[in-house]
Amino acid sequence: MQADARVRVAVNGFGVIGKRVADAVALQNDMTLIGVADVVSDHRIKVAASRGYPVFCSLDEKRAEMEAAGITVVGALDDLVRDVDVVVDCTPKKVAAQNIERYRAAGVKAVFQGGEKHELTGYSFVAQVNYAGAVGRDFARVVSCNTTALARVLHALHRRGWVKRARAVLFRRATDPWESHVGGMINTVVPETKVPSHQGPDAQTVIPDIDITTLAAAGPFNLSHIHFAMVETTRPLSVQEVREALLAEPRIAFVRADDGLVALNSVVELMRDLGRPRGDMWEVAVWEDSLAADNREIYLTYQVHNEAIVVPETIDCIRALTGTERDGAASIAKTDAALGITKTFIPAVPVGAHGGI
Amino acid sequence: MQADARVRVAVNGFGVIGKRVADAVALQNDMTLIGVADVVSDHRIKVAASRGYPVFCSLDEKRAEMEAAGITVVGALDDLVRDVDVVVDCTPKKVAAQNIERYRAAGVKAVFQGGEKHELTGYSFVAQVNYAGAVGRDFARVVSCNTTALARVLHALHRRGWVKRARAVLFRRATDPWESHVGGMINTVVPETKVPSHQGPDAQTVIPDIDITTLAAAGPFNLSHIHFAMVETTRPLSVQEVREALLAEPRIAFVRADDGLVALNSVVELMRDLGRPRGDMWEVAVWEDSLAADNREIYLTYQVHNEAIVVPETIDCIRALTGTERDGAASIAKTDAALGITKTFIPAVPVGAHGGI
Amino acid sequence: MQADARVRVAVNGFGVIGKRVADAVALQNDMTLIGVADVVSDHRIKVAASRGYPVFCSLDEKRAEMEAAGITVVGALDDLVRDVDVVVDCTPKKVAAQNIERYRAAGVKAVFQGGEKHELTGYSFVAQVNYAGAVGRDFARVVSCNTTALARVLHALHRRGWVKRARAVLFRRATDPWESHVGGMINTVVPETKVPSHQGPDAQTVIPDIDITTLAAAGPFNLSHIHFAMVETTRPLSVQEVREALLAEPRIAFVRADDGLVALNSVVELMRDLGRPRGDMWEVAVWEDSLAADNREIYLTYQVHNEAIVVPETIDCIRALTGTERDGAASIAKTDAALGITKTFIPAVPVGAHGGI
Amino acid sequence: MQADARVRVAVNGFGVIGKRVADAVALQNDMTLIGVADVVSDHRIKVAASRGYPVFCSLDEKRAEMEAAGITVVGALDDLVRDVDVVVDCTPKKVAAQNIERYRAAGVKAVFQGGEKHELTGYSFVAQVNYAGAVGRDFARVVSCNTTALARVLHALHRRGWVKRARAVLFRRATDPWESHVGGMINTVVPETKVPSHQGPDAQTVIPDIDITTLAAAGPFNLSHIHFAMVETTRPLSVQEVREALLAEPRIAFVRADDGLVALNSVVELMRDLGRPRGDMWEVAVWEDSLAADNREIYLTYQVHNEAIVVPETIDCIRALTGTERDGAASIAKTDAALGITKTFIPAVPVGAHGGI
Repeated sequence: MQADARVRVAVNGFGVIGKRVADAVALQNDMTLIGVADVVSDHRIKVAASRGYPVFCSLDEKRAEMEAAGITVVGALDDLVRDVDVVVDCTPKKVAAQNIERYRAAGVKAVFQGGEKHELTGYSFVAQVNYAGAVGRDFARVVSCNTTALARVLHALHRRGWVKRARAVLFRRATDPWESHVGGMINTVVPETKVPSHQGPDAQTVIPDIDITTLAAAGPFNLSHIHFAMVETTRPLSVQEVREALLAEPRIAFVRADDGLVALNSVVELMRDLGRPRGDMWEVAVWEDSLAADNREIYLTYQVHNEAIVVPETIDCIRALTGTERDGAASIAKTDAALGITKTFIPAVPVGAHGGI
Repeated sequence: MQADARVRVAVNGFGVIGKRVADAVALQNDMTLIGVADVVSDHRIKVAASRGYPVFCSLDEKRAEMEAAGITVVGALDDLVRDVDVVVDCTPKKVAAQNIERYRAAGVKAVFQGGEKHELTGYSFVAQVNYAGAVGRDFARVVSCNTTALARVLHALHRRGWVKRARAVLFRRATDPWESHVGGMINTVVPETKVPSHQGPDAQTVIPDIDITTLAAAGPFNLSHIHFAMVETTRPLSVQEVREALLAEPRIAFVRADDGLVALNSVVELMRDLGRPRGDMWEVAVWEDSLAADNREIYLTYQVHNEAIVVPETIDCIRALTGTERDGAASIAKTDAALGITKTFIPAVPVGAHGGI
Repeated sequence: MQADARVRVAVNGFGVIGKRVADAVALQNDMTLIGVADVVSDHRIKVAASRGYPVFCSLDEKRAEMEAAGITVVGALDDLVRDVDVVVDCTPKKVAAQNIERYRAAGVKAVFQGGEKHELTGYSFVAQVNYAGAVGRDFARVVSCNTTALARVLHALHRRGWVKRARAVLFRRATDPWESHVGGMINTVVPETKVPSHQGPDAQTVIPDIDITTLAAAGPFNLSHIHFAMVETTRPLSVQEVREALLAEPRIAFVRADDGLVALNSVVELMRDLGRPRGDMWEVAVWEDSLAADNREIYLTYQVHNEAIVVPETIDCIRALTGTERDGAASIAKTDAALGITKTFIPAVPVGAHGGI
Repeated sequence: MQADARVRVAVNGFGVIGKRVADAVALQNDMTLIGVADVVSDHRIKVAASRGYPVFCSLDEKRAEMEAAGITVVGALDDLVRDVDVVVDCTPKKVAAQNIERYRAAGVKAVFQGGEKHELTGYSFVAQVNYAGAVGRDFARVVSCNTTALARVLHALHRRGWVKRARAVLFRRATDPWESHVGGMINTVVPETKVPSHQGPDAQTVIPDIDITTLAAAGPFNLSHIHFAMVETTRPLSVQEVREALLAEPRIAFVRADDGLVALNSVVELMRDLGRPRGDMWEVAVWEDSLAADNREIYLTYQVHNEAIVVPETIDCIRALTGTERDGAASIAKTDAALGITKTFIPAVPVGAHGGI
């Protein structure tokens, strides 16, 4: 740890997750973004440079190309790694799994993303579920967007001893919004071949004793995932009990169809209207007026913004690994305040804010 | 019933379902299509005329317009109704509910479609489940595409006493393939506001004692629906047992992802390759390699071709109401032979069909 | 005009355009947003309230519903109109055309949007083309998104005497991103029945002597329109000449496919990355590396963000009508500075901004 | 040529084009389909086998896999090639270009598809434009779907000396209907980087002296392409003249928006209703009510079914190469009769076909 007490952070891989993590790190008052590393030379990394993020090159053979594109390359990835306390690895799957040895050799801690297997780090992290166990570890994996959402929602119920058995069907987006290669998923739905799908077992890496089965499919849309969860409960629950449990849980917020928020895109439009950076929704959005319960089961429909949901988890994981904050709730509170994460998407109007005529 | 022993059939409403029912009636050797009625003047009804179907006008005020478009209008809807044994009503929702009095007054039997409520006729029909009860009735409702699919699949399990409780999530197509009005469902998913969705109770109008809950959403595609069913069983079942139960059930056929049939559109492509009229798939297509079972539950993923699946049911319902065939299995066999409904989409190659070189 | 010299502005209709205009007015240091009026009670207007915008009710019969939803309704539309210098009418088509009499009666000026006909106000406005003629008028119409884009691009060429004849094919988005009603435009393209399409003549309401023909179609996407323009020139032009003419024109900026900006969605992703509110792109984005010229014609491909492009025009139109700024270039400069409109989407990195290691 | 006077044909590559060519060959009374060759083992080739087409394996190393899947493999590609007069090569791009040497060595003629370059065979073929020049050649290339459509439509005008200069904007489908890999073109439009696009020069390989420029883009739909053509004419033309020229041209048919055929999908629906195999439309569908003309230019909007349009061209090309028919018009007539290609999609109702009541 450096003398100034701020954690020194590198982001390796400036893609969909990496660019958001970099911005989020830059917003924390107990962290310093030392640099970002990538291999591309196009607008993506130029935006990083224009924000004043020091840019490093992850592959020596790409450096000339980056410099030819007008990008000031501050150094190689190893230079960056050597200079930080923790690396957030947001590189593609196979690359990330190879990088761990590099980080180990350099003696830096590292946060990996959900594309990696649980076994890579031995610790799968969702802040509100298992922050404490990650404190002081060298490595941890922030689980995928779908698993993070499952863990947040189910933990709210499971911690109260309510979950007998959970089932969920996950409709995943076809691709990320920035991608546009020719071809692909037009006018169809692609069910996962493997049943049950991997997300259920992955949720168990975070909540080991939960009984859960998931099915999944991908469809021709790119704004978010949507989950339909059916949770058998250990006793009959009222909708109000479920509602209160979700209200008490961080990073879950309600939307209402009868408030005009009727679909994935209308919730995204709300994020745009709220001035969120990139329209990001870090919270799981649960449809409040679709909450239902019968005498043995509860039903939940919720939206998962796959680009954004793991960003606050990653920030918390940095604090856990480096031990700068040993209390999960305190870290969550810091992160949420810095990013603007809320329990109420549409803020109440301040009393007396409007005058009459 | 006319002397020639063929049932005289009218189709009122020549839209997505009506045009298919008309073609299917024309293929049965115990039915005669006396005419089709509609109010439109465009290519849709011209195709009917070009096939030699007598065209009637359902609304007097539309007759001049139809004739101006070059369509020979044989008569009014009442002329048609008066001349048949049974009307298949495929008109839009509100129209259909009004028509029943007209049919009653004319003393003709009538088959309604799944857009109508159960209460309209008091009998909700899926041939392989409850044919017998419809024999001789004046009116019955063929249930919707989603409910028909649920009933076929669950009946195969329920008749064996295997269903303890069924849950299903239904991902519905946004619209039918012919529609293209400006606006609509682009890049989003619209969850049903009402949870549980109406399809579960609707399935209970066909299989009264089944315990079922459904959730539903619509997405930006138009080729088919897809269902994800999770069925708690009364005893542990093997995949092989489930497989055999489905194989024994009419109008269910398997597809396999490992045979390249990986998505809604690839199954549709197979229907095109098989030379099906309009690419129609009357069968429920269950992914055989996605069948899964654990010690208490089985999992099924299947595709529902919403344009076509209720067509054979409608043909059977005509026979049931008119009593021309009192045995459901016999009617199903006749219908399936006439339409080309199969248990095996890809026919085995005849032995010795190919010579060597 | 009020004593404090700020123009007092009302926005009637808080939809896709109205909410953006309200935000833009609030950013100008020579304008005050007095209030917004609408009839809805859902999240859309609640966001307005949460931003501190006084909310008025446009229809008396909706007031109770709005108040029941917890919205503080400051007054009726007439109260608002009476209290301002200018109304920006962003209501739907038929409503807007009726409102002009109300504004006339109240003695307030009004800006209308491009859904209205030219004849409504007799003046069709694009700031960089014909600001001067709108100065002091009571009413003007900011033309539609497509026409605004055509006018900006073609004016850059036409003002230099280069345009012999222009042709353009417009590929329009199906709907706006917030909309998600069931049905609609799935997997198709809908060509405009009327050829040539209306946008060509509409551009001539702004640039009267230009020779232009347009064709149009709508497709299943919602992020932006895209235009393909082929402009016959009065003399052979080089790509460099065209490039410089576009560089000299306000509110046109370049993107490059070889910089990874290869499609509508990748440009939208850049807007998100740049931190634009709602990801808005007020500029016309011309593909610099798709600019082409032969000895008689030039070719341009450009993206039109239909939600945002008319917002700066509307701000300028307010200044023109109220006469607070009589010089178009000065108004454009003020608006562009306030909103962050640029000629260079990816800012150059400040020299010395990064240190080495 | 074999004694029985039928041309012996092989189809190498049983994909989107190959399967259609095989079916079309099987329908000609002067051709025999000797076999089809491919490397896949899934439902696609099983359908070929189920139709009784002898299946050959194009790559020795794939034979065991095909046989393990239950496919009777009659022989290797070389066995098939040796046994025929002509091969239709429908393999992917790089494969096809390599195959020509194999065909040359075997002394068989070959038809290639539009993915190959003009230079591969030195002859780019569209039956109604340049059949004669292909008679007796060893190799020819049937041009791509887009180029075929351009050539048909423009040839109708050009052969009359009407075309001064043609411009067209092509909106291409993202992918073929059978494809569904994860990712791809969601909610966007991808303009071609190269301007003008390659289709204009490609049309000139068929109509060498035509002055044409094309621009192109791909969008998120998969049913067809759509072209918007603006043709400057050598003298003012009336819409009626254009109409008659198109009516006189083979393989062009009209659709009308005012007949309810308003979009790509509604024309596809008509093909389904007409009972076309796979819903194929071999004709270029020109919107009759969108034809427009002014005193110097005409405007055409037309749909190109990319899966099907080159199939009849391929059949004609077989006859031209093998010299079984030296007259292009006669070959076209044979092909069109065999496939059901029409000038009038909606057949007139036979007089007296309907009786009254």
